[in-house]
Amino acid sequence: MKIIQSVSEMQSFANSLKKQGKTIAFVPTMGYLHEGHLSLVEIAQKNADFVVVSIFVNPTQFGPNEDFEKYPRNFEGDVALLEQTKAILFVPENTEIYLLEHLTFVEVNSLENLLCGKSRKSHFKGVTTIIAKLFNIVKPDFAVFGQKDAQQVLIIKKMVEDLNFDVKIIVGKIIREKDGLAMSSRNKYLNEQERKDASVLFESLKIAKKMVEKGEKNPALVIEKMEKLIQTKLTAKIDYVEIVNTKNLQQVKILEGEFLIALAVKIGQTRLIDNLLVGEN
Amino acid sequence: MKIIQSVSEMQSFANSLKKQGKTIAFVPTMGYLHEGHLSLVEIAQKNADFVVVSIFVNPTQFGPNEDFEKYPRNFEGDVALLEQTKAILFVPENTEIYLLEHLTFVEVNSLENLLCGKSRKSHFKGVTTIIAKLFNIVKPDFAVFGQKDAQQVLIIKKMVEDLNFDVKIIVGKIIREKDGLAMSSRNKYLNEQERKDASVLFESLKIAKKMVEKGEKNPALVIEKMEKLIQTKLTAKIDYVEIVNTKNLQQVKILEGEFLIALAVKIGQTRLIDNLLVGEN
Repeated sequence: MKIIQSVSEMQSFANSLKKQGKTIAFVPTMGYLHEGHLSLVEIAQKNADFVVVSIFVNPTQFGPNEDFEKYPRNFEGDVALLEQTKAILFVPENTEIYLLEHLTFVEVNSLENLLCGKSRKSHFKGVTTIIAKLFNIVKPDFAVFGQKDAQQVLIIKKMVEDLNFDVKIIVGKIIREKDGLAMSSRNKYLNEQERKDASVLFESLKIAKKMVEKGEKNPALVIEKMEKLIQTKLTAKIDYVEIVNTKNLQQVKILEGEFLIALAVKIGQTRLIDNLLVGEN
Repeated sequence: MKIIQSVSEMQSFANSLKKQGKTIAFVPTMGYLHEGHLSLVEIAQKNADFVVVSIFVNPTQFGPNEDFEKYPRNFEGDVALLEQTKAILFVPENTEIYLLEHLTFVEVNSLENLLCGKSRKSHFKGVTTIIAKLFNIVKPDFAVFGQKDAQQVLIIKKMVEDLNFDVKIIVGKIIREKDGLAMSSRNKYLNEQERKDASVLFESLKIAKKMVEKGEKNPALVIEKMEKLIQTKLTAKIDYVEIVNTKNLQQVKILEGEFLIALAVKIGQTRLIDNLLVGEN
């Protein structure tokens, strides 16, 4: 498979495709790929002539006490997984992506400080900055993101709109393990007990869904029920459980129309997120 | 001449040029064009197949007490001036460029708070944000900026490098009136006395240059001489006179190698800037 490592080579390649009138769909990843990522690559292949998958563990989206160093990496495994697809792999060096004196950042104000942004300060600033850079390097017509990172999707859509990136954002649905746990590279961190307990995240979302379907309009009651269920697991420590407006991420006061039920829970030392979009058109 | 008003039309036009293998050089302006702007258009024409000139008085780069409302506008005059060139004019509406809830900004940390950034808080954040947007709309291979806005040039070059914009920045030299006053749309604000006094800015730069050529190494002595000369004009009020490193805009301690002599002076109510690059390679 075609593997590109340098920024200028990636840009030249993108330019040559454009001259040929070919379209590019882009799937940015941090590697350690799983079926969730592959589902995004599949969507990308359906939408464009060429698919570029990037693998880059982006340091600026990790906080000083987070897991940048130990974030799982398995380049050979990733290549093997992608080999079946026709994707082009872009694997830049950290030293080329962030020069010694990197000064420029892209920020989507207000959205970045809610939900995950409360406990992960400057996380989304790192995300929007690297995605802006990758868009300028890969020059995609389409970019595919997973709904698991619901807040990220919303923030990137807003960045694309506000900065006039000529990129259509496509969102792939959450891919789950058999017991409902959303696939994530970080699931690898879980020990046996934690892995069992982690299924409670999706269970709590299913209960929420049922309550809403039965007509519950009070978000506080739904959140209370979810939290109580999650707290039955000894390894679980709730970061947040919130029900928010899908446009501005503000907490909703009544459950009607479209809203997002989102949660972040530490299972042991591993922070996991999950969410459910209700009333989606 | 071809005038484009909508973002999507500009992007489609840029895409169609790229498919034909044509290059685009871009000259972003705030209109009220003068020979300085035309010199940039000329440079653009020498470098690319097509030239796009934008006219957009960007509200986010003006402070609350600055001259956004009264900034001079003369669309018919601008069109007449450009008619002789083969430029394509991009004239977007403010309401399309900044949506009701615009949340995303691009910032080049540290560089933006020096020199003009000291008295014009958030000015450069407005500049980098609009230029990032315009680059995504016009999709240029080259962009031409005037050396008169020396700090802007440096900040935009850093943004291009840090965010991997595939755009080559070209810098056009300062175009001056007969008495040396740097051309600027804001010169229109000056009354007769102020217009006379304004020539002192370039005179002070010429004196600085002479001192340096004669071997002066002490920036404080050069600045003192410049300030004294400027202060002989009753209408002049100095914002800053500084001699700085051309890469990081920090004040230099000794005059050697390459450095930038930069100044901002209010003549009456009109804030003017000028600069001189010394030791340029």
